[in-house]
Amino acid sequence: MRFGVIGTNWITEELIQAGHTVEGFSLQAVCSRTLERAKEFAAKFAAPFFYTNPAEMAASGQIDAVYIASPNCFHAEQAILCMSLGLHVLCEKPLASNADEVEAMLAAAKKHDVLLMEAVKSTLVPNFFTIQDHLPKLGKIRRFIASNCQYSSRYDAYRAGEVLRAFDPAYSSGALMDIGIYCLYPAIVLFGKPEQVKAEGVVLASGVDGEGSILLKYEEMDAILSFSKITTSYQPAEIQGEDATMVIDKINHLTRIEIRYRDGRIEDVTRPQTPKAMHYEIREFIRLASAGARESATNSHAASRLTMEVMDEARRQIGVVFPADLRRGSKHPETGKNEQNREAKRDENV
Amino acid sequence: MRFGVIGTNWITEELIQAGHTVEGFSLQAVCSRTLERAKEFAAKFAAPFFYTNPAEMAASGQIDAVYIASPNCFHAEQAILCMSLGLHVLCEKPLASNADEVEAMLAAAKKHDVLLMEAVKSTLVPNFFTIQDHLPKLGKIRRFIASNCQYSSRYDAYRAGEVLRAFDPAYSSGALMDIGIYCLYPAIVLFGKPEQVKAEGVVLASGVDGEGSILLKYEEMDAILSFSKITTSYQPAEIQGEDATMVIDKINHLTRIEIRYRDGRIEDVTRPQTPKAMHYEIREFIRLASAGARESATNSHAASRLTMEVMDEARRQIGVVFPADLRRGSKHPETGKNEQNREAKRDENV
Repeated sequence: MRFGVIGTNWITEELIQAGHTVEGFSLQAVCSRTLERAKEFAAKFAAPFFYTNPAEMAASGQIDAVYIASPNCFHAEQAILCMSLGLHVLCEKPLASNADEVEAMLAAAKKHDVLLMEAVKSTLVPNFFTIQDHLPKLGKIRRFIASNCQYSSRYDAYRAGEVLRAFDPAYSSGALMDIGIYCLYPAIVLFGKPEQVKAEGVVLASGVDGEGSILLKYEEMDAILSFSKITTSYQPAEIQGEDATMVIDKINHLTRIEIRYRDGRIEDVTRPQTPKAMHYEIREFIRLASAGARESATNSHAASRLTMEVMDEARRQIGVVFPADLRRGSKHPETGKNEQNREAKRDENV
Repeated sequence: MRFGVIGTNWITEELIQAGHTVEGFSLQAVCSRTLERAKEFAAKFAAPFFYTNPAEMAASGQIDAVYIASPNCFHAEQAILCMSLGLHVLCEKPLASNADEVEAMLAAAKKHDVLLMEAVKSTLVPNFFTIQDHLPKLGKIRRFIASNCQYSSRYDAYRAGEVLRAFDPAYSSGALMDIGIYCLYPAIVLFGKPEQVKAEGVVLASGVDGEGSILLKYEEMDAILSFSKITTSYQPAEIQGEDATMVIDKINHLTRIEIRYRDGRIEDVTRPQTPKAMHYEIREFIRLASAGARESATNSHAASRLTMEVMDEARRQIGVVFPADLRRGSKHPETGKNEQNREAKRDENV
């Protein structure tokens, strides 16, 4: 499958390196904001083509699928553009800025009959399936608790007075969007739609959440999710059942999974997996596309939709508003975005 | 200082054993529901006097102070009775069933000019002061997260159909009251009154919370507290600052405290402390009484009041109501309880 990539950050490098370990993956084109960067990046990874305009790359006929790793605020527009040209889309998490954008993307995927999958790597690795397989051993499940708190090097810049993209609401950034989703997404995949969402957090002067916490209420259990880009946590995740507790070393990596029973017995149920975790999402994506499937059973459209609905509600309670949320006056039929704003942003949208 | 104890459970045994390591502690009297138990317990710990009626023990002239470890629903009434007779009161956590009862207790302490202290052992051990001493090293504090989840052997009985006191709302029990307070109390002592409380939990058929979770919102941080008597957690507590994170092994024992800096350096700031943690609360209590003080600076009246106000609000959101909450029709001037109900309960109140 011939891939084009939009965005040339470290995450794209990881995607490409993992892609080279998956049968059927072929990097054909690279799209970056500047010609120099596009050219350099394409050369580094032996991609034959490079672009500065996503629309041109999408229309080139050189690719079958696109991997989108641009800032969150551009995901919806770029994904819909690519899908409208018949490309399958693997889009980095979070899928978009808000639930309206996600709906527009899901509608576009349906309309243009293409595969759309959110690139949450952690729910497609072998150890996520280990979790699912062994859940019955825990008895009645009463709590999921997961924390993803990593002090960001960009917060040093922030404290020094420079607001980089990771802390700029114009890019639909912040702790919840960037890393909190690694706590939330598996909760949604494992336990479905919560009955209630309660959230708190610290809104930085720039307007994004530096850190936050979410309680999800389910009928017979609850979930606690915490995330931060301004502090670091060392806590493992846990799924607490009445008969045993599953301890997960890192919710975004899942490299060690053990079950601790009440009698003190510890069962290590870890499965071997490659450290190139994106291997599994690429393999899943190519497998689905080859089979003519339009969504993943795990990273499903429903999971992406529910996740973003919870994130919208959490942001509302924490008090984080993105410019993307306000572009709802004269809606573009597919993106839900105001046309004028879209044009204004085009020159910086990779 | 001559002590009487009300209640003869394992916690009273721990109190007495720890008391014997504190200068000035002398066990004089024991009060239990049945004469056999009172006699047996007094003999075991070489107490010269034993009673089945707290009022008789309080009026005996044999004791200067009382330690109350009866079920939560009796704390307020027994404490107020003892204080009205001039006794100092060390009362097990939680101080009472609800904030109304706490207010009545604090008013009684003031009126009768005696020492009243909530027996939260964990905030009076050397390692709690270690936490306070080293907090400035963490930089701006952004999150406190603590979990106290211990599957209760009494939940085995509950699952088998027998509702023991630990799961009976008539005794003002449940996970929050019994062990969740070990997460909440230090949060209140360290960070004061939260701006907002958000809570969820699982209410068992008996009417108490089997488990629950609380978010506390502060101006520049938040706190996450989780508790359970129907599952077990293995998570350490954390205080996350922008410059470092303090990791606390067990929030109710505080036996190991380390600071993890962003550069990877780990500083162990643990202080040696006796495993008989109640040693410190007894020492504090005797020291305060000897000095003529009427409350502890750490386990203060304000801390007890705030803690109970948060617990009331959390219970309201989780949906737990105690019979003690409903006794507010014809209020006793000190206890806030309905006289009739108090009489009805007197014969089983130890």
